This record gives sequence, structure tokens and C-alpha cells, in this order.
Amino acid sequence: MSTNNWWQQAAADLNEEIRDQAWQHQNQLTKPPGALGKLEKLATDMAALQGKVKPVLDNVHCTVFAGDHGVVAQGVSAFPQAVTVEMLKNFVAGGAAISVLANCNHFDLSVVNCGTAIPCDDLGGVTHRPIAPGTADFSQQAAMTAEQAQQALMIGAQQLEQLQQAGCDFFIAGEMGIGNTSAASAMAAVLLQLDVVSLTGPGTGVHGKALDHKSEVLANSVQRAQPLVKQPLDALVQLGGFELGAIAGAYIRAAQLGIPVLVDGFIATSAAALACKLNPSVRDWMLFSHGSAEPGHLQLLALLGAEPLLDLGMRLGEGSGAGVALSLIRQALALHNQMATFAEAGVSASNE
Amino acid sequence: MSTNNWWQQAAADLNEEIRDQAWQHQNQLTKPPGALGKLEKLATDMAALQGKVKPVLDNVHCTVFAGDHGVVAQGVSAFPQAVTVEMLKNFVAGGAAISVLANCNHFDLSVVNCGTAIPCDDLGGVTHRPIAPGTADFSQQAAMTAEQAQQALMIGAQQLEQLQQAGCDFFIAGEMGIGNTSAASAMAAVLLQLDVVSLTGPGTGVHGKALDHKSEVLANSVQRAQPLVKQPLDALVQLGGFELGAIAGAYIRAAQLGIPVLVDGFIATSAAALACKLNPSVRDWMLFSHGSAEPGHLQLLALLGAEPLLDLGMRLGEGSGAGVALSLIRQALALHNQMATFAEAGVSASNE
Repeated sequence: MSTNNWWQQAAADLNEEIRDQAWQHQNQLTKPPGALGKLEKLATDMAALQGKVKPVLDNVHCTVFAGDHGVVAQGVSAFPQAVTVEMLKNFVAGGAAISVLANCNHFDLSVVNCGTAIPCDDLGGVTHRPIAPGTADFSQQAAMTAEQAQQALMIGAQQLEQLQQAGCDFFIAGEMGIGNTSAASAMAAVLLQLDVVSLTGPGTGVHGKALDHKSEVLANSVQRAQPLVKQPLDALVQLGGFELGAIAGAYIRAAQLGIPVLVDGFIATSAAALACKLNPSVRDWMLFSHGSAEPGHLQLLALLGAEPLLDLGMRLGEGSGAGVALSLIRQALALHNQMATFAEAGVSASNE
Repeated sequence: MSTNNWWQQAAADLNEEIRDQAWQHQNQLTKPPGALGKLEKLATDMAALQGKVKPVLDNVHCTVFAGDHGVVAQGVSAFPQAVTVEMLKNFVAGGAAISVLANCNHFDLSVVNCGTAIPCDDLGGVTHRPIAPGTADFSQQAAMTAEQAQQALMIGAQQLEQLQQAGCDFFIAGEMGIGNTSAASAMAAVLLQLDVVSLTGPGTGVHGKALDHKSEVLANSVQRAQPLVKQPLDALVQLGGFELGAIAGAYIRAAQLGIPVLVDGFIATSAAALACKLNPSVRDWMLFSHGSAEPGHLQLLALLGAEPLLDLGMRLGEGSGAGVALSLIRQALALHNQMATFAEAGVSASNE
């Protein structure tokens, strides 16, 4: 692979001088040092990312990338494939969890169709960029071609370029696609050299024998694909999904453009792992929202050195965990930016 | 003790029929069942507490109860006692963490002076109900008289009665008082028959030898007081604080009036333990916001059967952990009340 691929260009630098200044400010606030716990690190990380001693969240945007998965032919999901497009309608109509959170937490929401099995090009309110009517069944063959994989990355990148032009200062990626925990598990297993069975969970609700079957399908798929994966992009080609590629591309371009991202749950973290394997410099631009109930998630987070903010047993996707955790970042910034200092408030300092 | 004491009257009943209806509603929302994790239980708990299938948070109020502690004469705190009143000014002026959170998360904030060492009766914006200029040094004698303990409970109860009349539908108690982790540790140890050293932590920033000294002072205090504690109220008398008693009284009266409370960190949980020992029926009205960095907190929570929502390493008090966690309850209710059902959205159900 040429080193001139756009996704290999370095991420923007963090501003460590501003981080130091932000810590100096944080330590003057009227509280015992460290008493706000992780909220202090969050605020100062945001300062380094935005290059502002008092960082702001003026223009938060969530894009839900959707795609279908050929592997559902093997019976790995609890829901029929029609649900992917049905949920796109629900996102647009405002009835989905991420729609409610966007309204409640004041962020913008957009939906990008990366390739649904059932055509939906007439659905308004959605950006249609279909690569194909879903991926191929990766238990039998590569999920997509190398060209399609690059197309997926580019969909995410172009979305971020548009958002940057619109003033976006913080990004959340969501996903929708029946079968995409299967793709996320298989792709992450190959990327991170993990046992795929340890990364396989119920997804939308696969239990008992059906879960054993899902594990078997994924183990066989990984066995088929493993020898064909010579570089990170091959993992997307062999076992990924269009929306997973788009999210990875979005994360990479966000980091290059200097826009922090808040990573959602298991599937988004699998895309984050792909992004970091394609370009390790993007890791610094990622904050992690929650540890999900999907059993492999904590393993992925640990390998990425990520400490998620929440542990609420959520496992919905759509960006919903990030949508909830956003409220903590807003509060961390409000405290950092608005609390009085000891000097301002005339409060005595510690005896020590 | 007479059984006619106001604090022994039963808490209001939860509405279990409404809880069932709320679960039926929750399970029809466009997501796999259970996919919102703890947020689902939160919403349905709130339904049972408020007696509404779609519960609301229209009028959330936080009261910070403040008091000083004679035991600081033993050198158990990192900050001088003057800080208690200095922080009251900061609460009123809007510069403290809980003030910023009240503004950010749209709840009302009030401050009640239960007895500060430095008189501050001229400080506007504070309700002054001083019992005494701080408690007595409980390493040497009872912290307060039985009459003062009842007075403390009553301050909290009357505050809740006023709030109920003003339409309050959800309550948070905060506290301020230099030395009050010492009182909380000692009181909880005696109430719950725990080793006080295992409940002793840095508070505002006591480390190393100073922490060893704090542990020793508290161990000796508990040894002095233990034989004198015949009933739960005696723990408040011997080792408590005015603000701890007021919070316990507030929690009890809230439960009797049917107002759910969100318990903050270590000190508030110690007051919650007192409330539950005085009147076990009030436990059902308590939600728990976070596990703090104070080492004894998780032990107290476990004994109360409490599962906190957040684990952010916070240890500030003032109600700040509850102020942050409130955002999760708001989001749980927004999702529960505003998401579309499968039928409304025309989304296919699970195959199973």
C-alpha cells in the first residue's frame, strides 16, 4: 500500500501547553484538588484537544451510518433484515433512542445510508451513499472488495469534512445494521488477534443455541479470512461492514481535522480499533463513552487503552451510549469553565 | 422511645401496578428488550415512585445543609474550619460545583445553615437554622444532645415540607462542613457495626501520617461512644453532625411525602444509613447517584443494597455527585417517555 493514502496522514497535534494551563486553572477551583475525579481529566483532555483553556461544545453532531450484512443469511441475528431500513425511518421521524437523546442533549443528528439490503433511496432526511445492497456473506467470501472498503472509509471522511465546514466541534458516530455485532466481532478478532468466540455476544438478543450457532459461524468466518488479512484494511474487506468502514473513516478524518470524537459501544469500538490500526495517531482524538453489556467490549477497550465514562449495561448502538455520556462531558466543561477559583471566592486553601 | 415519633411513621407506598404498566410500555419501545440497561430500571422505578407510567422531573430541588464539627480540634481535616462559611458564600454566589451543576442541569438550589462555628446569620440567600456553633468534639464527649439531634432531623423534615408545598417532585441533599467525613465515618461505623478504620479516608485531602492520625482519633471516638448507642438516634447524638441529622430527616420526610431522593456520596450515604435505621420503610424512596473515591463508600452502599449509577472517582460532596447523576435520570425518562413503540414506528419485532 502506498503511504500516500489519505487515511495514513497524521492526526492533528494536541496542545500540551494548553493542557498544562487547563490543569493550572482546574487546580485553582473551589474544591479539594482531584475531588471531581474523572471530570477533571475530561475537561483538561478537551482543553488539549480543542486548544482552549476553557473548551466548549457549541456544535456537537452525531451521524448514524447504516449498512446491511450478508452474513445474516446464516441466522446470526434476532431481528429480520427489514429492521435496518425501518429504523432509518424511525431515526428521521424522531422516535429512536438516538433521536430522543439528540433532542434531550442538544446535538444534531444525521443519517447516512452506506448500503441497505432493501433499497430506500426515496427516504427523505437521509444522505444516500449506498455502496451495494449490503455486504456479501463473509462466512463464504470477502464481505466487500478493496475498492468498496476504500469507498466506505471515504463516505465517513467526506461526512466529517462537511461537518467541519458547518462548524462541528465534537463528533459522535452511531451505527445501524442488522447483523453488525457479527461483523464487529469478526473484524476486531482479526485486527487485534483475539479469539472471536470471546468477542461474540447476544447483540440484539441471540441466546442459548442460537448464540452457539453465531459463535460457530464467526469462528469459521475468521478461519476462512485470517490467511487473507495482510494489512488492517484487509480485515474490513474480509469481515467488515460498510457502516464500520465509514465510521473508521470518520474517526480518522475527525482526528486529522482536529475534531474530538466520542466513541459509542461495541460496534463503534471495533471501528475505532480499525481506525487505530490504519493510523495509530488518531487514538489521541478518541474519548470513550461506556462499557456495554456486549461481552467483548471491555476487552476491546482495554486493548485501546480506553477508560469509558459509563457502565450502565447499555447495548443498543445507534450512538446511544455516547449520546448519554455526552452529558458528562458537558458537565465537566461547565464545572471547569464556570466554577469560582479560591481567590475569586475568598475561600481559604488547604492547610497542607 | 415512643413509636409516635414523626420519623417512625411509614413511608408512602410505591405504586407497583404503575411499575408493571411502565415496564409494559418500556418493552414496546423500538429497541431490543433490555438494551438501555440500567436506564430502563431507572425509568420504571421512577414510575413506581411517582405513580405515573410516564414519570416527570419538573421541579428538582437540592438543599445543601451545612454544619461544623468540634472534632476538627483533633486535626482531622486538611482545610481550616473557616471554609464552611466561606463555601456557603460561594454556594450563594454561584461559584461552587453544586451551583454550576444546578444551573447546568436545571434544578433549584437552597442552603440551610444548621450550625456553623463562625456565625453567619447575616449571610443572605441562606436559611439560618443554627442549632449551635458546631457540634462538640466527639472524641471527648457526645457530639450533641438528644434534643439537638431531634432538632437536626426536624430541620430536614421542615425543609421537605416547604419544598413539597412548592411542588418539588425530586430531591437531592448536599452537605458542607469541614470535618464531616470524620462524623460520617464514625456514625456509619456504629450504625452498621463496621470497623471505622475501613471507613476512614482522605476526605478533602488527608494523607499519610495525617490519615493515620484521623483513623486513630475515629477509632478512639467509636470506642468511647459504642457502649452509649442503644438505638439509631444515639449514633447521631454521639458521633454525628447537625447537617447529617438534617439530611436524614429530609430523606425520611421525603419518603413520607412521596418525593424520591437521589443520594449523593459518602456523607449523604451515611445520613441515608441513619435514615434507614431510624425508619427502614424509607429505603424504597432512595436512588443512589455514584460510588465515590472515599474508600468506605462502596461498603456502605452494599449494606444498603444500593447500586450507584456513576463511578467517576468524585469525592467533593455538596450534592455534586447527585447533581451530575441527575442528568442520567432525565435521559432515562426522556427515552422512556418519548421513544416510539414498535407499532408506532412500524418496526418489525424480534424473530424470537
